[in-house]
Amino acid sequence: MISKMNKSSKKVIQRRGLMLVLSSPSGAGKTTISRILLEREKELTLSISATTRKMRPGEVDGKDYYFVANKEFDEMVERGDMLEYATVFDNKYGTPREPVENGLCNSKDVLFDIDWQGTQQVAAKAASDIVRVFILPPSLKELERRLYARAQDSDDVVKERMAKAADEMSHWAEYDYIIINKDVEKSVADVQSILRSERLKRDRRPGLNDFVRGLREV
Amino acid sequence: MISKMNKSSKKVIQRRGLMLVLSSPSGAGKTTISRILLEREKELTLSISATTRKMRPGEVDGKDYYFVANKEFDEMVERGDMLEYATVFDNKYGTPREPVENGLCNSKDVLFDIDWQGTQQVAAKAASDIVRVFILPPSLKELERRLYARAQDSDDVVKERMAKAADEMSHWAEYDYIIINKDVEKSVADVQSILRSERLKRDRRPGLNDFVRGLREV
Repeated sequence: MISKMNKSSKKVIQRRGLMLVLSSPSGAGKTTISRILLEREKELTLSISATTRKMRPGEVDGKDYYFVANKEFDEMVERGDMLEYATVFDNKYGTPREPVENGLCNSKDVLFDIDWQGTQQVAAKAASDIVRVFILPPSLKELERRLYARAQDSDDVVKERMAKAADEMSHWAEYDYIIINKDVEKSVADVQSILRSERLKRDRRPGLNDFVRGLREV
Repeated sequence: MISKMNKSSKKVIQRRGLMLVLSSPSGAGKTTISRILLEREKELTLSISATTRKMRPGEVDGKDYYFVANKEFDEMVERGDMLEYATVFDNKYGTPREPVENGLCNSKDVLFDIDWQGTQQVAAKAASDIVRVFILPPSLKELERRLYARAQDSDDVVKERMAKAADEMSHWAEYDYIIINKDVEKSVADVQSILRSERLKRDRRPGLNDFVRGLREV
């Protein structure tokens, strides 16, 4: 008994990947945080959306978007093959389920850059895989400053963007984790700690069952 | 509107502390991990148990244990003032609720070194505050090696300890996070990432409500 090797100690226990959703009002720093995260987290890949809009010069099908015809898009929705979708100015955008599911099965985490409406749809379809993070600006003043800097626009345009930001922020309480983005490096480390700890969750590691059985062979 | 200060940006949003439970079979490395954690995490304090056993030379009341009389202990249990308790060789041990609650209210996290039975009791009384981490040894062989090294004892004694470890491990699935302790530094960092991310959870930060209200004043 004492000399018996526990074979499961030799391999890493496979885990199911997770869906990391980052939402925020524009101006809160989400784009920067996402970019740095994707550089640092080798097991994290960005979800690629499908769209019915025309491909633009320089865009690559399957990289920037999956470019699909209107009919194909609608059929995917009908078959339940879209995790979430929305129509923006006559164009449809959505997240195909299959590439995400393939990623999760191969222990890849998938990053979603979607708003509260998309998040609600994904949560309804994949409650146990989703990890929802909402990023807030550190203050109203700072949010205004960032939107001004970005817009280089009139007070009216900024006011409209502030109203849109306020609308997005009204859904903060539907998220699991809240990050106040005072400092980008700290916020990135916050998201990385969320990834690291969520990967340790029992529910994401079906292989643990056999592993513990091996430990209890006495 | 633009010039209005958001006062909430000036202060850190208060959070409610959490109860970090570490359980493991003996020989999995929990004691070492706990010691290093308490050195590194300034907001983490070790829960102090109450006991009816006699104070030993060198022990300090309120530091090693709260030493209480049998009658006092029983009254605390009856009033619901014990988060968990057990009897071991005629002595009673338990976790008084009040100092823990004081800690949580002051944004302190409290570390519990308790077994699965204590964990079940605490979870029943404080479901939203508890974060349960189970530490596993990397292999059966390594567990045996550690128990041998520690025991310097006969095969029979080690066999008994292995059986006890197997019993404790049978409850691993009642925990939120599972850490396989191959490397102490990595395991400590795992627990630290759990602490960091759990502190970011929406539910632990009641002050966020007012903070977001401040951000949405447009």
